[in-house]
Amino acid sequence: MARRILTGFIANEAGKAGFRRVVVGLSGGIDSALSATLAAEALGPANVHALIMPYRTSVPESRAHAEMVVRGLGIASQVVEITPMVDAYFGVFPDADQVRRGNKMARERMTILFDHSARLEALVLGTSNKTELLLGYSTLFGDMACGINPLGDLWKTQVRALARHVGVPEAVVQKVPSADLWAGQTDEQELGFTYERVDQVLHLLVDRRYEIPEVVVAGFDEAFVRAVARRIQTSQYKRRLPVIAKLSPRTIDREFRYARDWGR
Amino acid sequence: MARRILTGFIANEAGKAGFRRVVVGLSGGIDSALSATLAAEALGPANVHALIMPYRTSVPESRAHAEMVVRGLGIASQVVEITPMVDAYFGVFPDADQVRRGNKMARERMTILFDHSARLEALVLGTSNKTELLLGYSTLFGDMACGINPLGDLWKTQVRALARHVGVPEAVVQKVPSADLWAGQTDEQELGFTYERVDQVLHLLVDRRYEIPEVVVAGFDEAFVRAVARRIQTSQYKRRLPVIAKLSPRTIDREFRYARDWGR
Repeated sequence: MARRILTGFIANEAGKAGFRRVVVGLSGGIDSALSATLAAEALGPANVHALIMPYRTSVPESRAHAEMVVRGLGIASQVVEITPMVDAYFGVFPDADQVRRGNKMARERMTILFDHSARLEALVLGTSNKTELLLGYSTLFGDMACGINPLGDLWKTQVRALARHVGVPEAVVQKVPSADLWAGQTDEQELGFTYERVDQVLHLLVDRRYEIPEVVVAGFDEAFVRAVARRIQTSQYKRRLPVIAKLSPRTIDREFRYARDWGR
Repeated sequence: MARRILTGFIANEAGKAGFRRVVVGLSGGIDSALSATLAAEALGPANVHALIMPYRTSVPESRAHAEMVVRGLGIASQVVEITPMVDAYFGVFPDADQVRRGNKMARERMTILFDHSARLEALVLGTSNKTELLLGYSTLFGDMACGINPLGDLWKTQVRALARHVGVPEAVVQKVPSADLWAGQTDEQELGFTYERVDQVLHLLVDRRYEIPEVVVAGFDEAFVRAVARRIQTSQYKRRLPVIAKLSPRTIDREFRYARDWGR
């Protein structure tokens, strides 16, 4: 069911935007592997172009997994190292911490994907899932930036189930999730909780609209629930457009949203 | 009036986002000069940090004008050359045309502004005006990306008037608008019409909600009006968030927009 909706979504949205092809960044992780797999099913493998964009500290396993996905799907791919661009910048700012470096890398990859959108006449396919979007666990104008996103309404645990269902290689499905920004990084260690647990709390807070005390009654630790609710609130700015100062009667992203502005 | 609203907007939005400072990219042009001037008035010059980010082909006049604005306002500034990063990338893709190069540069500048947002604990101040936003004459996830945008509801002709009013140097106000992406580029030549004329048509189409025939009756060439209306439509994708495939009852950027998600 989700598979049919999501492949239909990709084919339909790409067509509406005037594209036959998509370009997707493959990290070696499960989210981008699932996005690419759905796109290959929706548009045909010949119309999916993967970019593999390692940094010098990326673990070799990431690239190997990305190449495994490419081979399995029979899609085209290209490796573009981001090391020269990223290192040229941090040569000027050597004191930058790992978070700044990680965000710069995510944004560098975005600029390469969008350049390849123009180069290949291909729509940039997103890979952010609902869990990371709501936790703000992704880079604004970096990995969050895309043309269309087939995964943004799937929890991480649902990404796992669907990935297995559509045949993403088990090595990719089973490995510990990591942004691979520094050695030994894992999502769950950095976040301080498991996807299994946070997805349940997010589902109650967001989909079911429970208040915090109701989630606690459902069996979750109050401090944990509050921390999750707080992450949703403090990351809200990443999920909306930049605020424009209002001066006229029809401001972009406020009154200026009418259907006729879209064309057909 | 606009001046008071916009300085209030900057102070208020920066505060709500938890920032005392802003960082702004100064191109040497009028839009970023106006943004920086309003911010210096709103937050004090000590709380405005300017980045000047030339490429090797940028005309020296651009940097000179940016530095004139910095001196006039008494704000801090720093020059970060984008040449090493941009050239490292296009060394791999030497066939890229000027549009691709221009977009990559705009996005590189964005990544530097956002890195400085973290480095300086400063909100990224936007510089896109309503004319270029509606014409799609700017780079998605490049110069369009920011934290808050004080200029997004001002036509280019209004930017000019307000810039003069708040004391932006006449050399900056009077020079021919250019994105300075290649030698001799000017906005009006590239667009094929003047800001004076297009702002009138945009005002009638957008603010006044005229239909195309009504704009023609008001005295504008039909082919021109149709071309402008078409630009608005085909660039609509730049003014919205990436579309997420809907699967759940509460999808991000659709049902998930409630005030309580914002915090207070």
